[in-house]
Amino acid sequence: MRTERRLHRLEEVLRHRQPDLTVVMENIHDPHNVSAILRTCDAAGVMRIQLLYTTTEFPDIGKKSSASAKKWIECRRFSGVEDCYRTLHGEGYSIFATHLEESAKSPFEIDLTRRIAIVVGNEHEGVSSEAATLADGILQIPMFGMIQSLNVSVATAVILFEAVRQRICAGHYDKAKLSGDELARTLNEWAMKE
Amino acid sequence: MRTERRLHRLEEVLRHRQPDLTVVMENIHDPHNVSAILRTCDAAGVMRIQLLYTTTEFPDIGKKSSASAKKWIECRRFSGVEDCYRTLHGEGYSIFATHLEESAKSPFEIDLTRRIAIVVGNEHEGVSSEAATLADGILQIPMFGMIQSLNVSVATAVILFEAVRQRICAGHYDKAKLSGDELARTLNEWAMKE
Repeated sequence: MRTERRLHRLEEVLRHRQPDLTVVMENIHDPHNVSAILRTCDAAGVMRIQLLYTTTEFPDIGKKSSASAKKWIECRRFSGVEDCYRTLHGEGYSIFATHLEESAKSPFEIDLTRRIAIVVGNEHEGVSSEAATLADGILQIPMFGMIQSLNVSVATAVILFEAVRQRICAGHYDKAKLSGDELARTLNEWAMKE
Repeated sequence: MRTERRLHRLEEVLRHRQPDLTVVMENIHDPHNVSAILRTCDAAGVMRIQLLYTTTEFPDIGKKSSASAKKWIECRRFSGVEDCYRTLHGEGYSIFATHLEESAKSPFEIDLTRRIAIVVGNEHEGVSSEAATLADGILQIPMFGMIQSLNVSVATAVILFEAVRQRICAGHYDKAKLSGDELARTLNEWAMKE
């Protein structure tokens, strides 16, 4: 009985997963932030993310309480921007980096229902100039205050949940995006996790 | 010259302030979260927040780097829900608490351009049942993952920036909401801060 309810729950979550929405974390070092971003990704239905660590080690998030989100998100590691972007472009993603610049677009004004990868950067330095230059577009959240930036996990959440809002409106959570085979295979993997 | 540019910047921020959008933080104890929420409030144009601490002390955020946002947000302290809500109702706010329950509405579906106070709760226990029961409505962010909650500073940001999105569409940042007198008085106070 318990197993059946559990499987049902896992399948429900998989039916809501959005394989066409992904995140690239570039050199984010604070485990609180990594942890909060993974939790937000899980809630938004993100299936897989890219850990792009060119200058720092991937932080140890194993001991954080919300590290449990990590269990349900596939993480791919890259150590170079070009390699990461080539892979994502090969999979059909448009790549948008968050960066402060004149040509930046508001996430409220662009179509986030497309196949898209959002690049978020280091707490102190933001997204690297290489990651910004090679991206297909630049995103900037409109801000009206004295402080000219947001916490990186907050900024990621604002963009991902704008994607969620647009995708709810467009019916993207109404039926499974994974193929029958992928869904069955992933369900099987997930069921083994506990 | 420098002073003039500075005054111009302060006035620009004050012209975007939204005195009809406010937050109640109930017993949030982690200084990282308090700090991230203040920074998000500043960016969204929130002018004043309520610190409702019924069970814990107000955390010391003085030493955090982003504590600088605190300088630009007026904080009122309350130690009881009734007192806090009476004050807000007296000022014309509708009070919406974030809480997991059947009757909850999605922030994407309600009008956040109205005069509104958003109540966010403690990291472990969420909003108290008193704060939920006495609120005018309950908000819940749609979530599609395995983990059934978001970090509190992330949840606050998702709701506040949905308010920002709605308010940009409705032209709320296009002209000052503060009266000429309030604007001049606050500008004077702010100019003294540095």
